[in-house]
Amino acid sequence: MFKHYFPILQWSKNYNRQMLSGDLIAAIIVTIMLIPQSLAYALLAGLPAEVGLYASILPLVAYTIFGTSRTLAVGPVAVVSLMTAAAVGNLAIQGTEAYLTAAIALAFISGVILILMGIFRLGLLANFLSHPVISGFITASGIIIAASQLKHILGIDASGHNLLDILISIEHQISEVNYPTLVIGISAIVFLYWSRKHLKTLLLSIGINQRLADLLAKTGPVFVVVITTLATWSGELQSLGVKIIGDIPQGLPSLAMPAFDTDLWQQLFVSALLISLVGFVESVSVAQTLAAKRRQRISPDQELVGLGASNIAAAVSGGFPVTGGFSRSVVNFDAGAETPAAGAFTAVGIAMATLLLTPLIYFLPKATLAATIIVAVLSLVDLGALKRTWIYSRNDFAAMLTTIIVTLVQGVELGIIAGISLSIVLHLHRTSTPHSALVGLVPGTEHFRNIDRHSVNTEKHILTLRIDESLYFANARYLEDRIYALISHNSDVKHLILMCPAVNLIDASALESLEAINARLKDSGVTFHLSEVKGPVMDKLKRSHLLTDLTGEVFLSQYAAWEALRKAP
Amino acid sequence: MFKHYFPILQWSKNYNRQMLSGDLIAAIIVTIMLIPQSLAYALLAGLPAEVGLYASILPLVAYTIFGTSRTLAVGPVAVVSLMTAAAVGNLAIQGTEAYLTAAIALAFISGVILILMGIFRLGLLANFLSHPVISGFITASGIIIAASQLKHILGIDASGHNLLDILISIEHQISEVNYPTLVIGISAIVFLYWSRKHLKTLLLSIGINQRLADLLAKTGPVFVVVITTLATWSGELQSLGVKIIGDIPQGLPSLAMPAFDTDLWQQLFVSALLISLVGFVESVSVAQTLAAKRRQRISPDQELVGLGASNIAAAVSGGFPVTGGFSRSVVNFDAGAETPAAGAFTAVGIAMATLLLTPLIYFLPKATLAATIIVAVLSLVDLGALKRTWIYSRNDFAAMLTTIIVTLVQGVELGIIAGISLSIVLHLHRTSTPHSALVGLVPGTEHFRNIDRHSVNTEKHILTLRIDESLYFANARYLEDRIYALISHNSDVKHLILMCPAVNLIDASALESLEAINARLKDSGVTFHLSEVKGPVMDKLKRSHLLTDLTGEVFLSQYAAWEALRKAP
Repeated sequence: MFKHYFPILQWSKNYNRQMLSGDLIAAIIVTIMLIPQSLAYALLAGLPAEVGLYASILPLVAYTIFGTSRTLAVGPVAVVSLMTAAAVGNLAIQGTEAYLTAAIALAFISGVILILMGIFRLGLLANFLSHPVISGFITASGIIIAASQLKHILGIDASGHNLLDILISIEHQISEVNYPTLVIGISAIVFLYWSRKHLKTLLLSIGINQRLADLLAKTGPVFVVVITTLATWSGELQSLGVKIIGDIPQGLPSLAMPAFDTDLWQQLFVSALLISLVGFVESVSVAQTLAAKRRQRISPDQELVGLGASNIAAAVSGGFPVTGGFSRSVVNFDAGAETPAAGAFTAVGIAMATLLLTPLIYFLPKATLAATIIVAVLSLVDLGALKRTWIYSRNDFAAMLTTIIVTLVQGVELGIIAGISLSIVLHLHRTSTPHSALVGLVPGTEHFRNIDRHSVNTEKHILTLRIDESLYFANARYLEDRIYALISHNSDVKHLILMCPAVNLIDASALESLEAINARLKDSGVTFHLSEVKGPVMDKLKRSHLLTDLTGEVFLSQYAAWEALRKAP
Repeated sequence: MFKHYFPILQWSKNYNRQMLSGDLIAAIIVTIMLIPQSLAYALLAGLPAEVGLYASILPLVAYTIFGTSRTLAVGPVAVVSLMTAAAVGNLAIQGTEAYLTAAIALAFISGVILILMGIFRLGLLANFLSHPVISGFITASGIIIAASQLKHILGIDASGHNLLDILISIEHQISEVNYPTLVIGISAIVFLYWSRKHLKTLLLSIGINQRLADLLAKTGPVFVVVITTLATWSGELQSLGVKIIGDIPQGLPSLAMPAFDTDLWQQLFVSALLISLVGFVESVSVAQTLAAKRRQRISPDQELVGLGASNIAAAVSGGFPVTGGFSRSVVNFDAGAETPAAGAFTAVGIAMATLLLTPLIYFLPKATLAATIIVAVLSLVDLGALKRTWIYSRNDFAAMLTTIIVTLVQGVELGIIAGISLSIVLHLHRTSTPHSALVGLVPGTEHFRNIDRHSVNTEKHILTLRIDESLYFANARYLEDRIYALISHNSDVKHLILMCPAVNLIDASALESLEAINARLKDSGVTFHLSEVKGPVMDKLKRSHLLTDLTGEVFLSQYAAWEALRKAP
């Protein structure tokens, strides 16, 4: 039990030199990749750049101890950073102490929620996020994030948490564009797109081996950071209005418990819950994909504990909400990480960078970071999924489109809430009118089939309705309506048989509906029977009054019901 | 189509003298019963007494035109009046013009919502209110209403919209009890309870015939009203501190459109939606029960239109939200109402009372009305349902208990929202871990059964998982987890077959999960097959990429899959 919560106790027993070398190499490459990402996502969240670095040290160590994926790399990610900006932006102004305090509190609450979900096995809550909703949400978030970074590319001030606000804000400032900044931003974007497609070919052509070329091609952002920093420093571009990162406090974050402020926690609770769910769903999906490649397994409930611990670690070390990132986990995997120890080594790398490298990135232009963000998030935008979903299912399409539109127009929180609500409503709707059919006896057999599709024997005074779905609150009323309509249209009927071979469950609402049907059919002079009730359902019905009140009988087989009632008056 | 929205055009064609006489007698009895009810429920809603009368005139005429139940009697009812008080009490102070304006607006919005639901066939929204939630909600509402009326019985001032607030408020004032009021209140309650049980026997013993005795026994509140009014008048009890109804404006309400105030409408929207749903569910259940007794039928969608029209009629004539009432509909039915015309005749009766009788009830004590409310609502309290539900289903019990507790402690709106949310969560939870089994071949047959329960043949390199539920977003992730666990624990497996005879639906989330399973099993070196996919599900899968990407095959029967793969490497 204890060991279950500390997966490190299992894998560390067999740790060996070969694993160490794989983990170390992966850690070096992930560190290089993570430095610009951490800075960029902190800015996206509206926080000082160093907070991104802080969020990439202790959280990684926590995941090494508590996580079950061998290769997941945690830290700040784009979508969660955007959600952080939206949540905290409602409560405080960017750049203030209150803003940072709220972001730290958000990580703390999110961590507590995740750990509680893990302990109480509430991972099922993540089931509410259907694939179309998550996919639509990420597409819309990607668009908002890209739009929000345009201000850094243009060198203007703009703000807003949804697409409309951002675009209006940019439009107001468009005359203030800073051209040196624009040149840096556009060049960086062009280079990053080029490097995605062609850098690997180039590296291969100059004789670098396949695996290394693969990895180097993914470190394009690092090249851009180095080159534009050097250019800004040598060309004194900040005097031309190019905004730079500037001073970053050198040194490790100090540890402190987040302020105990129940008012703030209440205000952040819903945001923290949404961030936890989205972060968990994304992270688990990455972890499962990578685990399957090596026929390993992750435990979703323990993953909640691992991510929760990471977020609490972020909160106590001055960071903001984190989760498992897709691209960095793939790099970690490809670079040969064998165990979660690679994460701890990465943490050491980031800590060293925080201690030593921060003076070197003084001249890093914000436009460069914005360019890396834009290129990263636009790859998340998948408008083609809309078409695929439309072809497959109109209901799922509606949920996806609603999520995208509400997210773009109203912001991330309302967007995801609208998507979740609509997919639940549509699901209940879909099961609220279950398939059912009037059936009759196929001559010469003991089988009963739909009277509309087959030539079958029926009797005027007997109606048999077969219902092909579990009966529960969403369809209980439908069943009542369906049966009353049948009875009022067939005045000769004396017996109604409900045939239940596909009913896996009858909940209390459906039970009351069956009792109401029984009582009302009695008033109408019709006897109500059941047939082919499954064993577990029958066991439950025996604990109710239905069987004693039933005007008719429960028949084991429909044929037995038919034989008994055909001769009855 | 046009006729569909005006049921009156159908039944009025065959209207005859016999129907007229039945409707007239019923209307007289319902009028007598409705006068004290209307006054009482207006006071419960925190409104002037005459508003209750106004809500019992035009709304009844509107239902006569648009309703489909032959015998439903609409007007103010207890639970909806309580919900009105809670909704409007958040926005304005009782006794002010703003309070009345808000109550009228609430009726209007509720009417619009109901009509839109009817036109767009959204009656399914009512399905979200499971039986345990409604039952728990009505029990808790009954308790709150009874508690809220105690102040009138005690002759003190007290307020609050949940049980706790009300009891604390009463406790503060308990020293101010007015004893003459208390005597009237207690006597009225005792008489009403006695009359429920024994008045009919007494009436029969003095030679009144069975049917008339039945009806008169239900008019106990009218006796109490008459006697206590006379006593207060003759004894000048108001000078002893007994609070009386006092002046009621004589005359019919003036017609006016509700104020167009989008702010107010937005604030009332959620309350109006909840009132609409609760009112509709209660009303339809009464209407269906009565219709079945005469083998008639109601149309739930048109009922929405009928109730919506009634609420709009209430709003334009200075009334508050109305719906179909249980006890008065039963009286209407028992008294021989044949058509909805009885409702229109009742409206005439109430209109005449408003014109002529209001001076006579000047001396009616408020304590008397409170007593009629208490006796009426305590009959709605059904704590036994808790026990019955506990025995039948723990999930449904949890939903019911939560609804009761939250309603009592936090008020009606949060109570019903908590109940609805919890029952949806519990339902998704229940279907999120569907029944599934590894199956093997029963020797000598072509049947496959659970390997844990039967002695069956299996092959080391083949696993067959049968899944007994439709696949959708709530269980898509469970399926992934289940399959990855199987594969990581069975390293010899080369083929995994998913057997789908009970899968009625695969939504887009489940489709993506199947695609992920296919891709990840491929990475693990396992071929993924499907068997016994139903026709409609297969048609949908053909519109996706799954079938082209599938590493294995889709077999029509599990036996065919077995035969093909058993010999494969």
